[in-house]
Amino acid sequence: MSGADVLLAEIGEQPEVVRRLLREGAEVAALGRRLAAAPPRIVRLAAHGTSDNAATYAVYAFARLAGWTAIRDSISVPVYDGILPGARGDVAIGLSQSGETPDVVGWLEAMRAGGALAVAVTNDPGSALAAAAEVVLPLRAGEERSVAATKTYSAQLAVLARLAAYAGGSGPAVDEGLAATAEFADAAIPELRSAVEPVARELAWAGRMVVTGRGPEYATAREVALKLTELCQIGAVAMTATDLAHGPVAALDEHFPVWACVAADSALPAVREAVGRVREAGAPLIAAGPAAAEVQVAWALSVPAPPRLVLSPLLSVLPGQLFAVALARAKGLDPGAPRGLRKVTHAR
Amino acid sequence: MSGADVLLAEIGEQPEVVRRLLREGAEVAALGRRLAAAPPRIVRLAAHGTSDNAATYAVYAFARLAGWTAIRDSISVPVYDGILPGARGDVAIGLSQSGETPDVVGWLEAMRAGGALAVAVTNDPGSALAAAAEVVLPLRAGEERSVAATKTYSAQLAVLARLAAYAGGSGPAVDEGLAATAEFADAAIPELRSAVEPVARELAWAGRMVVTGRGPEYATAREVALKLTELCQIGAVAMTATDLAHGPVAALDEHFPVWACVAADSALPAVREAVGRVREAGAPLIAAGPAAAEVQVAWALSVPAPPRLVLSPLLSVLPGQLFAVALARAKGLDPGAPRGLRKVTHAR
Repeated sequence: MSGADVLLAEIGEQPEVVRRLLREGAEVAALGRRLAAAPPRIVRLAAHGTSDNAATYAVYAFARLAGWTAIRDSISVPVYDGILPGARGDVAIGLSQSGETPDVVGWLEAMRAGGALAVAVTNDPGSALAAAAEVVLPLRAGEERSVAATKTYSAQLAVLARLAAYAGGSGPAVDEGLAATAEFADAAIPELRSAVEPVARELAWAGRMVVTGRGPEYATAREVALKLTELCQIGAVAMTATDLAHGPVAALDEHFPVWACVAADSALPAVREAVGRVREAGAPLIAAGPAAAEVQVAWALSVPAPPRLVLSPLLSVLPGQLFAVALARAKGLDPGAPRGLRKVTHAR
Repeated sequence: MSGADVLLAEIGEQPEVVRRLLREGAEVAALGRRLAAAPPRIVRLAAHGTSDNAATYAVYAFARLAGWTAIRDSISVPVYDGILPGARGDVAIGLSQSGETPDVVGWLEAMRAGGALAVAVTNDPGSALAAAAEVVLPLRAGEERSVAATKTYSAQLAVLARLAAYAGGSGPAVDEGLAATAEFADAAIPELRSAVEPVARELAWAGRMVVTGRGPEYATAREVALKLTELCQIGAVAMTATDLAHGPVAALDEHFPVWACVAADSALPAVREAVGRVREAGAPLIAAGPAAAEVQVAWALSVPAPPRLVLSPLLSVLPGQLFAVALARAKGLDPGAPRGLRKVTHAR
C-alpha cells in the first residue's frame, strides 16, 4: 500500500473507531458521571496541532452539553514561565495522540501539582502523558501509520463529546447519536471520495486559502486548514466566519479560495453572511458540512445531518480530509509522506 | 496624504498614544487596584480581529503580571447558543476599537447579566460597547483613519499591560517600563522603515507565509499575520513555534517564507528550535523582535529590548506593521485602502 492509500484507509476507519469507543470506552462515561457529581470550576485543555483542534471542539462541547466553561489553556505560562495559576477545583485535560509531546506532559504535571484533576486523552495508555495523569482516557484508535492524524482526531472528538455529555446528563442519548453518526460517515465516505476529485483538479493551483466556520465547526475549520497546510503546502488560514467578514475578506479575490464548514446550527446566519461577502469578492467557494447546500457556493460537499448538532464536526471533517488528500495528489505531492513531518513530535 | 501615508503616520503615532495613556489613563490604574482587592475567578476577554490579538496578549500579561488565568472566551456560546456559563466572580473584558461590533456588545451584556464585572476597552467611550459596560477604559488613541488598525492595537496592549500590572501590584514599575518602551519605539521606527524595504522587495512574490512566536510574542505573530493577510493578500498562517515544529514545518520550502517574532524570554529555546527546523526546510526566514539577532536567519529586524520582557510585543509589532506596508507597495497594492475592508464592522 502506498502512503496515500494508508492515509485513505485510516480516514475510512474513523466510523469504526467511534463504534469501538462506544463499545469499550466505559472509562469516559465513568469520569463524566464523576464530574457531574462535583462540577469543576473550569475545564482546562492543552495540546498541539490536530489535538489542539480537538480541544477547540471541547470548548463548544462542554458549553453545549454541560453548560461549563472550557478553555484552551496556555502551555507556556506554567511550563516555561513557571507560573501556576490556581488550578484547584479545575479539570485539566492533556491531549496527545502519542502521549509523548514534552510540554503537554509538563503542563499536565504542573496542573496536577496545582490541584487540578489531571486527565490524559491519548492513543498510548503506556505513554508519559498517561503516566502523568490521574485518569487516562485511551483513544483506542489502533496504530495510526500516516503522519497526518485523522482517525485519532475523530476519536478525540468522540471522547470529548461523550465526556461532556455524561457530565451534563445526556450521555446515553449522545452515545446513540454517535452510533448513528458513525453509520452516516460509513455511507458518506465513498461518495465524498469521488465528489472531492473535480474540486481538487480545479483548484490544483491554490497556494493560499481561508477555511472558516463558527461554533463547533470552528474546530473543523482549524483542522481542515492544518491538513491543507501540512499535506498541500498551502498557506491555509483558519478563522471564524465573523473574523473573516471583519477584515480579511478584503484580501480575497479569484486567486484566494475559501472553504466554509457549514452546519445548520445557531452560527448559520453568521456563516451565510460571511459566505455572501466572500462571493462578492470573487473568491472560489467550497462549502462542506450538513448545511453545505444552504449557502450559495461553487461546490457544495454535503454530509448527512447528525442526530445532534453538536456532533456535526465528526462528519464535516470528512470532506476536508479527503479534499486535502486529493489536492495533494493533484499538486503532485505525496500525501502519505509529507516532507520532514515526524509522527511523534519532541519539539518544545 | 495618500492612504499609505496616513497608515504610516498612524504607525508613527503609537509611542505618543502610549504616553497619552500613561498621562491620562487613571481609570486603568483604579480598576487594577480594585481587582487586586477582590481578585476575579478568571478574566474573560472577547473580541475580533486585531482586538482579539490584543486579547491574546492579555492571556500572557495577566499570567505574568498578576498570576491570574485569563481566557479568550467563546462569543458564540452566550450570544448564539444562549448558554451562559456561570460568570459570577469573573471579570469580562470586551474589546472593540469602534465599540460597535454587535456580537462583542452582546457578549458583554450576557456576561454582565451573568454576574461578571463588565469592562469595555474601546476607542469610543460613546459606543454601544461602552454603554454595556460597568467600567470603560478608553484607548485615547485619537481617530484612526486607516482601515488597518495599528495605533489602537498598541493602545490596547498598553491598557491591558497596565491593568494586569496594577492588579498584580507592579503598576508604577510597568508604567515606567511603558514610558521607556515608547521612547525606544520612537527611536526605532525611522530605522525600521528603511530596514524593511529590501526584505519587501526580495519577498514581493510571496503568496503564503507562516508567522510564529510563543508566549506574549504569539500575540505579535497573530497580529503580523493578520496585517499581512489584509494588506498584502497573503495566506499568512499564525502558529506558535511549537505548533510549527510539530507539523506544518513539513509544508515549508523556498517558496513559503517564515516570519519569527523573537524575544529573549523563556520561549526563546522553543523559537530557536523551530527556526532551526524552518532553516533546514529551506524557507526564507525573517526574525523580528528584541532577540532577532539571536537566531540564524536571512533578515534580522531588531528592536530595542524593553525594560520588562512582558512589554516586548509593543516593540516587536513595529517591524511587522512596517513590513506589511512595504510588502503591499512592493506588490503594487494600496495599503491605505485594502479592497472591500470596512472600518467599523457590523458583521455577525
